[in-house]
Amino acid sequence: MSNNEQPTAVPLLAPLLGRIHEQRPLVHHITNMVVMNDTANITLAIGASPVMAHALEEVEEMVKLAQALVLNIGTLTPEQIEAMVRAGKRANELGIPIVLDPVGAGATSLRTHSALRLLRELRISALRGNASEVGTLVGAAAETRGVDSISLAEDREAVANRAARAFGCTVAITGARDVVTDGQRLARIENGHPLLAAITGSGCMATTLVAAFLAIESDTWLATTAGLVAMGLAGEIAAPKAGGPGTFRSHLLDAVAGLNEETFAHGQKVSIA
Amino acid sequence: MSNNEQPTAVPLLAPLLGRIHEQRPLVHHITNMVVMNDTANITLAIGASPVMAHALEEVEEMVKLAQALVLNIGTLTPEQIEAMVRAGKRANELGIPIVLDPVGAGATSLRTHSALRLLRELRISALRGNASEVGTLVGAAAETRGVDSISLAEDREAVANRAARAFGCTVAITGARDVVTDGQRLARIENGHPLLAAITGSGCMATTLVAAFLAIESDTWLATTAGLVAMGLAGEIAAPKAGGPGTFRSHLLDAVAGLNEETFAHGQKVSIA
Amino acid sequence: MSNNEQPTAVPLLAPLLGRIHEQRPLVHHITNMVVMNDTANITLAIGASPVMAHALEEVEEMVKLAQALVLNIGTLTPEQIEAMVRAGKRANELGIPIVLDPVGAGATSLRTHSALRLLRELRISALRGNASEVGTLVGAAAETRGVDSISLAEDREAVANRAARAFGCTVAITGARDVVTDGQRLARIENGHPLLAAITGSGCMATTLVAAFLAIESDTWLATTAGLVAMGLAGEIAAPKAGGPGTFRSHLLDAVAGLNEETFAHGQKVSIA
Repeated sequence: MSNNEQPTAVPLLAPLLGRIHEQRPLVHHITNMVVMNDTANITLAIGASPVMAHALEEVEEMVKLAQALVLNIGTLTPEQIEAMVRAGKRANELGIPIVLDPVGAGATSLRTHSALRLLRELRISALRGNASEVGTLVGAAAETRGVDSISLAEDREAVANRAARAFGCTVAITGARDVVTDGQRLARIENGHPLLAAITGSGCMATTLVAAFLAIESDTWLATTAGLVAMGLAGEIAAPKAGGPGTFRSHLLDAVAGLNEETFAHGQKVSIA
Repeated sequence: MSNNEQPTAVPLLAPLLGRIHEQRPLVHHITNMVVMNDTANITLAIGASPVMAHALEEVEEMVKLAQALVLNIGTLTPEQIEAMVRAGKRANELGIPIVLDPVGAGATSLRTHSALRLLRELRISALRGNASEVGTLVGAAAETRGVDSISLAEDREAVANRAARAFGCTVAITGARDVVTDGQRLARIENGHPLLAAITGSGCMATTLVAAFLAIESDTWLATTAGLVAMGLAGEIAAPKAGGPGTFRSHLLDAVAGLNEETFAHGQKVSIA
Repeated sequence: MSNNEQPTAVPLLAPLLGRIHEQRPLVHHITNMVVMNDTANITLAIGASPVMAHALEEVEEMVKLAQALVLNIGTLTPEQIEAMVRAGKRANELGIPIVLDPVGAGATSLRTHSALRLLRELRISALRGNASEVGTLVGAAAETRGVDSISLAEDREAVANRAARAFGCTVAITGARDVVTDGQRLARIENGHPLLAAITGSGCMATTLVAAFLAIESDTWLATTAGLVAMGLAGEIAAPKAGGPGTFRSHLLDAVAGLNEETFAHGQKVSIA
């Protein structure tokens, strides 16, 4: 943390988890093939309900049943982007919040342009990516190497702030420390564990948790922060039980399912700037 | 159980497992992207052999090599349904049994119509779904919320019976208690554990186990019952070892692989109406 | 082993692992839907970085960022094969090594012809399959039963040698014992465990490990041998901790992540013919 801020309990975060457990919101995913199973399972683990549907012929009908929509371009095709636009427009009409995960933006022009198109044509509630993905999208001097992030010359908080203003949404940049800003408020989240970077899809799973919180909370910045705290905290709980990335994955799901308002309230390491 | 029925050992069930182990049947899946890995692994665990193939150009050739065919519409597209029709027609010609899993029927018209088309154009051996999916398909006053089931006004056994007569096949409705009927015989299965509902794809995995038993047994009702007993029993064995849904998934596969005729015969909780 | 050869430490193998850890190469996969998650995770576990991308519009741009390319036809479509050809041609221009996994070659003509097309139109560095897949491809009198291997009349080492000469690449045939040859040198690998055959995708994961070693070592035969040793050795380490195939999968990833030059040097069971 910069200055002399202390990680502080944000009293508004923990009750959001209880509301997911009560309401069991449906989270519609149009997402990548690598993490489809993991993201469905983490949706159930946090107490929500997943549905995966990407056919052009049904996405508009499916999203009507949902309380949040995840758009994740990790294994995108042009047709899948069309489905995202259709589902997203219907979600916007109905006031259903959308989270965008711009996996690999900057690695190929298809990814960069598709993410920008979604940000332009849809009203996105929250954008979650790593520093190079978000940096690419705001035109920062970022290079991307595959879907892995590299360090940016520009400070990540400045990038997040620029993105929040440019796209008019909450922006989360995740990494060793997560930053969440809506351009006015900024949260720094210290929860997490290095093993989260040792498995595929931990970013995508974080995006899904953000969606689950958005489904029950209209303060997008608060909901996004809660989702990332949940992910980081579960990582902390799971890591000591794991012998490596394989067993960590299993314990991570257990830990998400075991989160409750008490553990959430005591475990969060959030400072507000 | 209704009346004073006791769970009884159905002596015909356990030997079916031994026949899977001996014959190692090949089960061809045209299935959804979420559960493809889980269903391949559970096919191996029960002692059968999986193959996943969905290209229009090869499904007819692939199904000829198989002893059972799984059609699962969980992430359907119109092209995938075409592939299912092609593979299914060839399977029908060759007498290869087909199991249909109508994931999300009722949630969108694409799903409902596609499932009905498959039931109309193909001779399906067994239909396995939750109460709202099967209820939708027989026109019961069912609402569907995503792919999750909701309670039906109509009694699930009555729905299963109606579906079995309407579609001329064995129908399994799974949930806290499973019901299997071919319109004449009805089995109630008490095996299972709540953790099965905490992971994605447990219904799809049950469908795969049904297919493995259908591959070696021509009495469809008996084979379907055996498949669901195997799933429920494995859930019971796995649950005490699990710390939550993530570790449960791993132990579930272990438990399926560990089933033998003895554990199967002693663990089954089936009553016949 | 034939003759009186002893498993010998090949001193050149272990240092390759250290080079993966140092360089963290990017491995681009165009692969099947069943194993996408497992292969991404094992790429991370060995110390490399995965990216999955198959859209025609981006594969040429993506492969430029990679140090190795995996082509796996396990759930192929004609469009996916097009993407493989495009990515492969660009990889050839740039000198990026390609590993081909001809899953199910021999089971359908689409698979056989697609694998042969890739071998004809691209310069493949290493071909890894089971005996019937490789045998089919060299026109041996092999029958294929789904994606599972069956025993061949012809000796597997002879098949591997014929394939290496026919296709001008390193050929690995995996099974209870693995064979790797470039037509001149031949390695026999005794590492492994029967549980590797109890889970789906262990062959595909071995292919991915081969790619990770090819990414940092230009001696294709050596790199391929190292990849298969890593897989077999991890299986040996994981098996005693597992209660069955489900927990084995988790421990397998842990074991891959835990490999280091010492365990690699001491655990390898390789004999050179």
